[in-house]
Amino acid sequence: MIPVAARSTASAGAPFVATTIERRDLGPKDVLIDIAYAGICHSDIHTARGEWGHTLFPLTPGHEIAGVVSAVGSEVTKLAVGDRAGVGCMVDSCRECEPCLAGEEQYCVKGNIGTYNAIGKDGRPTEGGYSEKIVVDEDFALKIPEGISLDVAAPLLCAGITLYSPLHRWGAGPGKKVAIVGLGGLGHMGVKIAKAMGAEVSVLSQSLKKQEDGLRLGADAYYATGDEGTFETLAGTFDLIVSTVSATVDMGAYLGLLKLDGALVNVGAPEEPLAVPAFALIGGRRSLAGSMIGGIRETQEMLDFCAEHGIGAEVEVISADRIDEAYDRVVASDVRYRFVIDASTIAG
Amino acid sequence: MIPVAARSTASAGAPFVATTIERRDLGPKDVLIDIAYAGICHSDIHTARGEWGHTLFPLTPGHEIAGVVSAVGSEVTKLAVGDRAGVGCMVDSCRECEPCLAGEEQYCVKGNIGTYNAIGKDGRPTEGGYSEKIVVDEDFALKIPEGISLDVAAPLLCAGITLYSPLHRWGAGPGKKVAIVGLGGLGHMGVKIAKAMGAEVSVLSQSLKKQEDGLRLGADAYYATGDEGTFETLAGTFDLIVSTVSATVDMGAYLGLLKLDGALVNVGAPEEPLAVPAFALIGGRRSLAGSMIGGIRETQEMLDFCAEHGIGAEVEVISADRIDEAYDRVVASDVRYRFVIDASTIAG
Repeated sequence: MIPVAARSTASAGAPFVATTIERRDLGPKDVLIDIAYAGICHSDIHTARGEWGHTLFPLTPGHEIAGVVSAVGSEVTKLAVGDRAGVGCMVDSCRECEPCLAGEEQYCVKGNIGTYNAIGKDGRPTEGGYSEKIVVDEDFALKIPEGISLDVAAPLLCAGITLYSPLHRWGAGPGKKVAIVGLGGLGHMGVKIAKAMGAEVSVLSQSLKKQEDGLRLGADAYYATGDEGTFETLAGTFDLIVSTVSATVDMGAYLGLLKLDGALVNVGAPEEPLAVPAFALIGGRRSLAGSMIGGIRETQEMLDFCAEHGIGAEVEVISADRIDEAYDRVVASDVRYRFVIDASTIAG
Repeated sequence: MIPVAARSTASAGAPFVATTIERRDLGPKDVLIDIAYAGICHSDIHTARGEWGHTLFPLTPGHEIAGVVSAVGSEVTKLAVGDRAGVGCMVDSCRECEPCLAGEEQYCVKGNIGTYNAIGKDGRPTEGGYSEKIVVDEDFALKIPEGISLDVAAPLLCAGITLYSPLHRWGAGPGKKVAIVGLGGLGHMGVKIAKAMGAEVSVLSQSLKKQEDGLRLGADAYYATGDEGTFETLAGTFDLIVSTVSATVDMGAYLGLLKLDGALVNVGAPEEPLAVPAFALIGGRRSLAGSMIGGIRETQEMLDFCAEHGIGAEVEVISADRIDEAYDRVVASDVRYRFVIDASTIAG
């Protein structure tokens, strides 16, 4: 076993403390990554605070991981020592089901194995990126291209792919009008990526508070959903809406913003069921869909796309001692737009 | 004006009576169709009983119309006297908006002009197929191919296209597993059409009461949704589910029957908003969509497809005096599978 400094929380909502976790010894297909940065995703907070149930404590979260390969197993071919590498939300899957064989491991019918708070194939709980090193099968490691700094690359591994995948799949591109609902960690990646894909991008946010940011990040327009007139003005406007919000919204009103054959894709997951007026779908042959991160192949494609277009996340780099404070600020939407932990501060 | 015998209802739920309505004189682009049969659609009942509000009384319903052209205007080129012709749910639209120009007149942004219970471009209420003749612009008339009897062709104009359009658009065909929810006037067309498209077809019905029929109509399998085990057994099975029911159902359970990237398309319109668990969409990149009849071009394509595959509706032909009784029986699901009024009995 490889002892690794990490930060973990002992129970729901307990403060993070410096600790040591054990990574498995390298198998023939494993790579050891020296973590440089780990992003803080809202999912980390839900899990650490026990809000989704089923948290395995003590918990070391983190699934937006960027670093450098420091050792490889005997059969590794994809990565070499010194390569810049990342790990996202998954570290394994069954590899045999239809989705896995199609490169859509996130939808593995047996359930993908999460980077933390899951049970690995070795029977041990997986532990995430708030740590100095991680061991991962090369098939679930990503190459981080030159041209993206590791700090702004880390959030691409979850926030980036979460937006890239539906934007790509639902055809964001030239001539398409795309709206991103919510300008947070996910939404700000959506604006950058949709713009780089060539779409005309609007932000739909509760207020105009972040309008200046939104336009700077590449949005062509910015609207306040708190203003009821917005839904009238924009009725029938968008080909695609990607909603990143977890709040309950008036689905009929949002669906009404879509053109004929438009799609509203949820990547945020409200806890309450969505109340969807059937006619809002039928009346314009509209679709309401959902999308969850992306497969490994597509995540690599996203990283290459981002490098090509000079896209990284907007980050605030913090020391590991500030994780608890950062959690509170994420919940208060007080971050522009992603906290990233500097892993050199993890040992404390 | 052309006086035409018809059946109409004077107020919400009032019995149908023999009456005379007036059709407009033929304009240069109009055709006069001598109606042979008119199907009874559940929409007729909702409208006649004032259940959807906004009914213009006295009302002559009927938008599943099949007959023979008996006169044409001076500029008509699409149809000639003696041609078999039909009229569906629309008789006009703005013809200028994006959907209209794309041949999707049903989604006209100004609203298509319904075959009945709408105001025509001449400012007069439109009146439907429970009548001996109808005058319609040739652009909204369909050719009924040889090889389909007019009685079984009539319901294709609404029930047929309502199922054909989503099945076609969402790719029902060889290698695809398709489920049709509900085996009524709409559902039975769905089974026949999906089967003819080459898909593997299952019926999901409350009970197994109509199982024998379902299999005879072409279904490969038949399941009772009243049996909870059905949802377990069939989890992750279907590429496409077309739901024809208006009842409120457990959307999470139905969405769980879809494979990765599967779609559930509603053509029935429950009055209550659908309660959709976001994770049921996100967890399999599934879509919930809606679809409403089809455009004129697609309706013609559907008629040609049905003729080629020997598909008509299963009908019970009735005299016009039995409309009220038929309405009660439709509401009680006591028809296999569509009532069709013999227009020769309309004058009474």
